[in-house]
Amino acid sequence: MSALSSSRPKMIDISQKPTIYREAVAYGRIKLKKTTIDLIRRGEIEKGDPLSVAAIAGIQAAKLTPQLLPMCHPIEITSVDVKCFIEDDEHVACRARVKAIARTGVEMEALTAVSVALLNVWDMVKKIEKDDRGLYPETLIEKIIVENKIKAETPLGS
Amino acid sequence: MSALSSSRPKMIDISQKPTIYREAVAYGRIKLKKTTIDLIRRGEIEKGDPLSVAAIAGIQAAKLTPQLLPMCHPIEITSVDVKCFIEDDEHVACRARVKAIARTGVEMEALTAVSVALLNVWDMVKKIEKDDRGLYPETLIEKIIVENKIKAETPLGS
Amino acid sequence: MSALSSSRPKMIDISQKPTIYREAVAYGRIKLKKTTIDLIRRGEIEKGDPLSVAAIAGIQAAKLTPQLLPMCHPIEITSVDVKCFIEDDEHVACRARVKAIARTGVEMEALTAVSVALLNVWDMVKKIEKDDRGLYPETLIEKIIVENKIKAETPLGS
Amino acid sequence: MSALSSSRPKMIDISQKPTIYREAVAYGRIKLKKTTIDLIRRGEIEKGDPLSVAAIAGIQAAKLTPQLLPMCHPIEITSVDVKCFIEDDEHVACRARVKAIARTGVEMEALTAVSVALLNVWDMVKKIEKDDRGLYPETLIEKIIVENKIKAETPLGS
Amino acid sequence: MSALSSSRPKMIDISQKPTIYREAVAYGRIKLKKTTIDLIRRGEIEKGDPLSVAAIAGIQAAKLTPQLLPMCHPIEITSVDVKCFIEDDEHVACRARVKAIARTGVEMEALTAVSVALLNVWDMVKKIEKDDRGLYPETLIEKIIVENKIKAETPLGS
Amino acid sequence: MSALSSSRPKMIDISQKPTIYREAVAYGRIKLKKTTIDLIRRGEIEKGDPLSVAAIAGIQAAKLTPQLLPMCHPIEITSVDVKCFIEDDEHVACRARVKAIARTGVEMEALTAVSVALLNVWDMVKKIEKDDRGLYPETLIEKIIVENKIKAETPLGS
Repeated sequence: MSALSSSRPKMIDISQKPTIYREAVAYGRIKLKKTTIDLIRRGEIEKGDPLSVAAIAGIQAAKLTPQLLPMCHPIEITSVDVKCFIEDDEHVACRARVKAIARTGVEMEALTAVSVALLNVWDMVKKIEKDDRGLYPETLIEKIIVENKIKAETPLGS
Repeated sequence: MSALSSSRPKMIDISQKPTIYREAVAYGRIKLKKTTIDLIRRGEIEKGDPLSVAAIAGIQAAKLTPQLLPMCHPIEITSVDVKCFIEDDEHVACRARVKAIARTGVEMEALTAVSVALLNVWDMVKKIEKDDRGLYPETLIEKIIVENKIKAETPLGS
Repeated sequence: MSALSSSRPKMIDISQKPTIYREAVAYGRIKLKKTTIDLIRRGEIEKGDPLSVAAIAGIQAAKLTPQLLPMCHPIEITSVDVKCFIEDDEHVACRARVKAIARTGVEMEALTAVSVALLNVWDMVKKIEKDDRGLYPETLIEKIIVENKIKAETPLGS
Repeated sequence: MSALSSSRPKMIDISQKPTIYREAVAYGRIKLKKTTIDLIRRGEIEKGDPLSVAAIAGIQAAKLTPQLLPMCHPIEITSVDVKCFIEDDEHVACRARVKAIARTGVEMEALTAVSVALLNVWDMVKKIEKDDRGLYPETLIEKIIVENKIKAETPLGS
Repeated sequence: MSALSSSRPKMIDISQKPTIYREAVAYGRIKLKKTTIDLIRRGEIEKGDPLSVAAIAGIQAAKLTPQLLPMCHPIEITSVDVKCFIEDDEHVACRARVKAIARTGVEMEALTAVSVALLNVWDMVKKIEKDDRGLYPETLIEKIIVENKIKAETPLGS
Repeated sequence: MSALSSSRPKMIDISQKPTIYREAVAYGRIKLKKTTIDLIRRGEIEKGDPLSVAAIAGIQAAKLTPQLLPMCHPIEITSVDVKCFIEDDEHVACRARVKAIARTGVEMEALTAVSVALLNVWDMVKKIEKDDRGLYPETLIEKIIVENKIKAETPLGS
């Protein structure tokens, strides 16, 4: 009974929470073939530079978070910084830092930025990651985590 | 020079590709605390049932793929099936199957559905996964992969 | 048990349905004060002509249907015609006709166009419908129905 | 002449209005067949539970209000609560409460949430509401009203 | 090296900027055939009045700016006023004024409103601007500029 | 009377038009300071490379055309190619080619891609184009035209 009533989906009411400075950093990575990493390094991916397309798409995704996550509140993000980089011979990693002066945290925005950025890396290198059957036996998105979160009365220096 | 020119981002031209039946299945999972999994099982998560919210948000995300992935083509998806389920005592998994009669594959749509569904699971259980500092030392999204892809002249039975 | 499994939200799989001509007509109306209807007639609503703003917003809403209705398929609408008109001294009505060559019907698109058009009529006349407490004791959206639906092998003359 | 000039569509300028606590409650309902209501009660609708899909879609629609209603301002909603419930043997009703700390009221957001939630109920039970010709002689959305509105200097307890 | 690192796309961090009153006015125009201008004047364009459709679409576009411009911040616009008018026998012009209480200026919102409004004028008169080959030898969008910008501690009278 | 009735905004009904290959090329440019052009050339714009951000945003805008232009039909674009380049010491130009197999032309999609790409160039160099009062005395978007259009039974080689 209470389980049933508790299972009605609802957005948390943040009307009474204070508007303070919020910051969150998320991280994640995608495993790619060594040959793919090499082509990215040399700037030879046919569809363009995966790292910059992914960063731009990640920034846009952070702003679309309330549309992608039904229970998320719309907030006025003041900064999104998405860095996609070659971590080692088999991984492209992505780190996103989101800031806002808001009534609720921005970790979901940072996680969304990372997730969508990594999906874009995959999309940009699809052709060379695919095997003969069109499958991706080696491609894998992993380790999507929240690395840090800050709450403060006033914004911190960037 | 050629690297530079090749790095101009571009959508692949699919004008000349045949319109055929496409199907793709993606999978991924999120690591949660045992106590969280237990609350999901008992239907006692305050914000509602994470599995059904995640499934619905995943279906919607599949349809938003061309907006989230700049180089993806808009396609008329004919089916999205997103199943979120408790895999074991520490994981909620998500499997998405996307179908279309289209000029290009639908693996990015399936991967997007899975990624956004898992982000929604995280969002729904945020409160109980957080530690005292508001961080998520145990929460992790991982193993996002393409499990299968089909191309065929005619749609297969579901 | 079967109830539970059946309750997992899912989009119907239309992969095997034929692509044929579809048409649907929806209707609905909003009850307004006589003085409001009079001001609309005289073109004296401060925010602009409610009938044309509502028609345009209704057309756009028809195209947003798959985003507003999670289980709806994206389809290439070939025509949306939204007519908002003064029905009598107390009602503005709206009729929307949507056409497509598609694997599924377009009644939800027509109903969405009507619903959003009527919401826009309300929004345009808010100021004069409100009472002293900011409430709307006389305003009411009602009778939203599907008036007609057509399926045919080939498009009919307009 | 003045009618013509007044008919240029415009958003009201709220720059000088104070940012205060706003709340609005809207209600509406959909008439369905008794057999449909019965299937919803037993959790046996093929596409999933209409009440929870509708609630989630209603919450998302509230956030899309400025996109659906051209003259509406974007606002940072702090809470959306959408409850869809079986009202009697022939009706599913929906009540939406929206809150914000904003320069303008949130009744259009609440009305949009209700309207879109009801459209989703229709969509979820389409198959069993249809007659042989694919029409819906008994289905009807009605009584969409604003039930309450609050303005206050500080947020009220929930 | 520094050029490369500087080329990583990023949104400016506005967390520490004060929230003040912002206003911006943009202008632009479209060159059309004299016969087209004449038909607009007489209200005889088949698709409807280009000036009001363009104004509405311009208002909506201002609100979509953060989605269209990846590096733009989401802001709570308090007013968008878009005026489309026949400037002379060969031009329809558009002027958009956008206001907000925000941490960053609103000139991109005003420019976006103007650009999208002018695209809509073009779309509305496409049929009569086209030559025999479907081309537009005389149609041209030009002179899109920022006419004015205001920053102030408190909102100015409208 | 006929003027009035003709002024009801409406989408053209394309249900009976054949689905054929469509292609359109649009062009436009933005006038910038010589010093800005120089910084773009040297890859030293603080917010990132304006040419690639603009190209990506232009591609996404092409796909958003039916949302930005109320009377435009949703179509399955098969290719968008947006090239932004330094045309001379004072101009960055943009050329967009859009392709589709569709019932209607794609010139509005190409024009939208160009317009939004140019807005993004402006946004990326805002800081260095501004004068002391925050105005842009030299910045100007101009010459937005349709350069070419093709209709054919079968897609042409790219």
